[in-house]
Amino acid sequence: MEGSNDSSDSDEASQTAGKPNSVTVIRLKKGQDDKPPASWWEKKKERVFRKKTLYMRVPILTWLPKYSLQDFVADLVAGITVGVTVIPQALAYATVAGLPPQYGLYASYMGCFVYLLLGSTPVVTIGPTALMSLVTYDSGAALMGPEAAILLAFITGCIVLLFGLLNFGFLIDFIAAPVVAGFTSAAAFTIATTQIEALLGLKFDDEGFLNTWIAVFEHIEETKKWDAVLGFSSIAILLLLRILDQFKLGKEGERNRWQNWFNTGCWLISVSRNAIVIVVASIIAYVLTEPGRNDYPFTLTGDIPSGFPPFKLPAFSFQNGDETYSFVEICRNLGSSLYITPLVAVLESIAIAKSLAKGKRIDASQEMIAIGTSNILGSFASSYPITGSFSRTAVNAASGVRTPFNGIYTAVLVLLAISVLTPYFFFIPKSCLAAVIICAVIFMVEISLMKMVWKSKKIDLVPFGVTFVFCVFVGLSQGILIGTAVNLGMLLYSTARPRIRIHKIKNPTTEYLLIAPDRSLVFTAMEYFMSSVRKASALYPGIIVVIDMSHVSAADFTTAYGFDNMIKSLQKHGHKLVLTKTKPEILPILSGIGCDLHVHSDGMDLDALLTEY
Amino acid sequence: MEGSNDSSDSDEASQTAGKPNSVTVIRLKKGQDDKPPASWWEKKKERVFRKKTLYMRVPILTWLPKYSLQDFVADLVAGITVGVTVIPQALAYATVAGLPPQYGLYASYMGCFVYLLLGSTPVVTIGPTALMSLVTYDSGAALMGPEAAILLAFITGCIVLLFGLLNFGFLIDFIAAPVVAGFTSAAAFTIATTQIEALLGLKFDDEGFLNTWIAVFEHIEETKKWDAVLGFSSIAILLLLRILDQFKLGKEGERNRWQNWFNTGCWLISVSRNAIVIVVASIIAYVLTEPGRNDYPFTLTGDIPSGFPPFKLPAFSFQNGDETYSFVEICRNLGSSLYITPLVAVLESIAIAKSLAKGKRIDASQEMIAIGTSNILGSFASSYPITGSFSRTAVNAASGVRTPFNGIYTAVLVLLAISVLTPYFFFIPKSCLAAVIICAVIFMVEISLMKMVWKSKKIDLVPFGVTFVFCVFVGLSQGILIGTAVNLGMLLYSTARPRIRIHKIKNPTTEYLLIAPDRSLVFTAMEYFMSSVRKASALYPGIIVVIDMSHVSAADFTTAYGFDNMIKSLQKHGHKLVLTKTKPEILPILSGIGCDLHVHSDGMDLDALLTEY
Repeated sequence: MEGSNDSSDSDEASQTAGKPNSVTVIRLKKGQDDKPPASWWEKKKERVFRKKTLYMRVPILTWLPKYSLQDFVADLVAGITVGVTVIPQALAYATVAGLPPQYGLYASYMGCFVYLLLGSTPVVTIGPTALMSLVTYDSGAALMGPEAAILLAFITGCIVLLFGLLNFGFLIDFIAAPVVAGFTSAAAFTIATTQIEALLGLKFDDEGFLNTWIAVFEHIEETKKWDAVLGFSSIAILLLLRILDQFKLGKEGERNRWQNWFNTGCWLISVSRNAIVIVVASIIAYVLTEPGRNDYPFTLTGDIPSGFPPFKLPAFSFQNGDETYSFVEICRNLGSSLYITPLVAVLESIAIAKSLAKGKRIDASQEMIAIGTSNILGSFASSYPITGSFSRTAVNAASGVRTPFNGIYTAVLVLLAISVLTPYFFFIPKSCLAAVIICAVIFMVEISLMKMVWKSKKIDLVPFGVTFVFCVFVGLSQGILIGTAVNLGMLLYSTARPRIRIHKIKNPTTEYLLIAPDRSLVFTAMEYFMSSVRKASALYPGIIVVIDMSHVSAADFTTAYGFDNMIKSLQKHGHKLVLTKTKPEILPILSGIGCDLHVHSDGMDLDALLTEY
Repeated sequence: MEGSNDSSDSDEASQTAGKPNSVTVIRLKKGQDDKPPASWWEKKKERVFRKKTLYMRVPILTWLPKYSLQDFVADLVAGITVGVTVIPQALAYATVAGLPPQYGLYASYMGCFVYLLLGSTPVVTIGPTALMSLVTYDSGAALMGPEAAILLAFITGCIVLLFGLLNFGFLIDFIAAPVVAGFTSAAAFTIATTQIEALLGLKFDDEGFLNTWIAVFEHIEETKKWDAVLGFSSIAILLLLRILDQFKLGKEGERNRWQNWFNTGCWLISVSRNAIVIVVASIIAYVLTEPGRNDYPFTLTGDIPSGFPPFKLPAFSFQNGDETYSFVEICRNLGSSLYITPLVAVLESIAIAKSLAKGKRIDASQEMIAIGTSNILGSFASSYPITGSFSRTAVNAASGVRTPFNGIYTAVLVLLAISVLTPYFFFIPKSCLAAVIICAVIFMVEISLMKMVWKSKKIDLVPFGVTFVFCVFVGLSQGILIGTAVNLGMLLYSTARPRIRIHKIKNPTTEYLLIAPDRSLVFTAMEYFMSSVRKASALYPGIIVVIDMSHVSAADFTTAYGFDNMIKSLQKHGHKLVLTKTKPEILPILSGIGCDLHVHSDGMDLDALLTEY
């Protein structure tokens, strides 16, 4: 569609451009060559944007009018499948966040409704995630009580929404893949570590990666045998069921009905493995419990209150036991979590959207608006911070989802669970929930990505490693900040150290030193570049220095200032300086401060110029 | 010297390079074109370095053996001139730092001795400066007592020396000229503001830029008339004497002896203007004072203890009044000053060395070693933090200095002042010292540089403005950090938004989209670049996309990862992707992660390749 719009532009441009060497060059942008033709489609985008702003910002308007019966069936199947996954995950992740299990359920439905209206991709599923639960736990919100976690969701939502509305999605570009990988890998280790206690039926107060492992080995003899047995067998079964959907009868396209049913059944079992394991374990726990006794073979989840908390603004100050917390105190206690939680929410959901976008562009700002609104409205329904879930989004995509409408069915299932199923959650063994979490997070460790980094650019293992180590041993928020800082520092260093090619050119009439930096001479690079020019020119007294500016696409005041100093210094030592292949956008910066520039333009004969000069 | 060393290299290389088009290309680096020839002289530098390490690190060994009588006379004149300047400045700057005046003198001689041994340029003069005094004051050291300021000098020295020995001089490259200008301009305003109180003979406790000016206007009626008169007339006289040396009799080269003497006299008066004004003002104060009365017309400096403090390690814990400070407490109180003071010391001295280096390279690490050692040894002699002084270095250069030996004469003069002259300092009027400081700092406001930034690259006024505003209204340390962060952020943003030229090329046999980014595709740029490619290719379904990589000099893992995704996504939409003009160092990064790359090498016919492909 857009292509045809533009053909008139192109044709017109092609006529003015002429036909050198029987090659028709079509410039997509009319006007001068030095203006970036990229802005041609940026302007176009702007035009389209103005027309379509509402459709972009409320995507449901685009797809709802075309909703069909096939869409409905596909969405229903996907929605229910995701619902069966989210309920056990929600109960488990709430404990990761340090909250009672029902808060996981409260966090699981509002995102579905909001994403239905505002989501830009059909597949992303918003709700509680292992990572966000860990970040919530790290914030110390649970120590102040669930109200603090709910308030954190509200604040997170406001920040993410604001940044989305301000179109600040580009900030994500500054966090590189290795840093994100280091962060998620570290989070996986940390989350798994928090579950060891429940997996073995231990009880201790130590926290943090190292302390927990030390405590585990100190208390290892107190392991509750049946908790451990159930936990490890759950892990084994979950891992087995996970690979069940790779097991297919018949060849692609040649299957009979029976084979297809069998394969679909395997896939369904594989996808619902969390629910299956938990239901089976709960039944076992129920059967093994003698009526009237309080002595259970497993550590159980216990009573979960039924029904919904009131739909209301989150409390901005509250009491927990003897302590009263004011809004300022809560914010002070939350500290760096106030920016880390929004950051992780955005990072996780955009990473997911990207990985499943199948090459389509992700509108990061729109995703931020959806996540922000989900958290704000979620907090009204007692949700703790939520974001896009990797595992459930993958289940959703694999279930053949078509539109965001599937979220409705997931949400209805969760609402049903909250109102009706909670009594049955009493018998869910804690070690089984721990097994669910561990099996979910171990695949967050980015080993394959590390291998790729090793093969591609080994130095990028440094930001990965720094992020990972700081995240595991110091804290998630410090880790991602320090990792990003190290990575940006490496990038800045590469701007500061251009490769500089120095050739001595000898012609019959002229002799000169050709100095060509391979990238832009920004302020960080100037001192190094000037010192290179100085040294090279000192080798050949009086020689003309020609600087090849073809790779210099950006310059700043310090560049100009440096050139001015360099020209004066070279003149003092009897050298002349000529710039060649300077881009038209660079010249005014250099000449602006009154540099005594000698510029060789494209049409001129360099030799003649130098001989004369 | 170095040039001839290398000629054998060059000749050999010229023979292997051949003579295309009667142009003899002399490659300074043997071997492949793709290796950066810059490293040729880097290796050379390394070789020279190994031989000359000692000479580089202890520069006195280079020049002392050649010391001549002419050198001696020139250095003596310059040394004494600087000495006459430093004594009044030292007394004044110590009060800026919040210390008793004699501490300025204690800080003025050790730097001269150390720089004699370790300094890499002859002109730089190390001692108390307005900026370092302000930073010392800001650190809150004076509140704990002079011992804290001395300890700050020791810590500053250790940090600067360590960074110098580790060759961390390159870190200075990351602070751009506009940030430095904003910082020094703000410091000038702040220092001048601190002197208004003394200039008008007021007394109040308010601090900080805004509060001080508010207090000045609140207390303006308490102005001591004679202090104000003396202060303002001192300023007027200092400014007049400052321009006296621009007043020359006769024409350059045609002067008679009398004219020469007159000109030299004018210059000498201009250079010694601080000393002259202070001596005259002190004599006036002495004359106007009636013997036996304690009621002076001016606010005077008062008693200054004579003699030297003991030469010893600085106290790592001490008592001041009722309070005892441990080392940890002192460090906590000093806070961010622990890194700001070393930073400013290095920034100021390197800025000075650069501006007077006359195009020679400044060895930043060697300067750091000299500054570090000066502060460490200085702290043994009760010096507060010191660095290179702009005004005195300029005086030194103008006095015809030849070697760092001139420092000896300056130091001797200061030692004389401490041991003999202190009783005479009693009568120095405080408003006169304030005038000396104000006249020194007003020329630190970088108005001409701001004009140049305006003409060269207006956006660079942003880091200038941010640095200036935060330095004046929040604090020097916050200002320089925030200004640098903003500036680096701007640089990072420019790496994230390459200009992308998009041309549709139509040949008889082929048709393709040529996409050329104008700079490296580092991780910050990938999302933007991919989205540009995606949109452009969507306009022409099925068209071949050719990416011109000629300006891509750097890439990282995220680049490779992005290319992998982009290639897969383009293939899904029926596009083929070909890279052209890819640099040899970029290819392994992209191919390392298993991208399905189609690369067009220099020798190949692009049309033929595309037709076939």
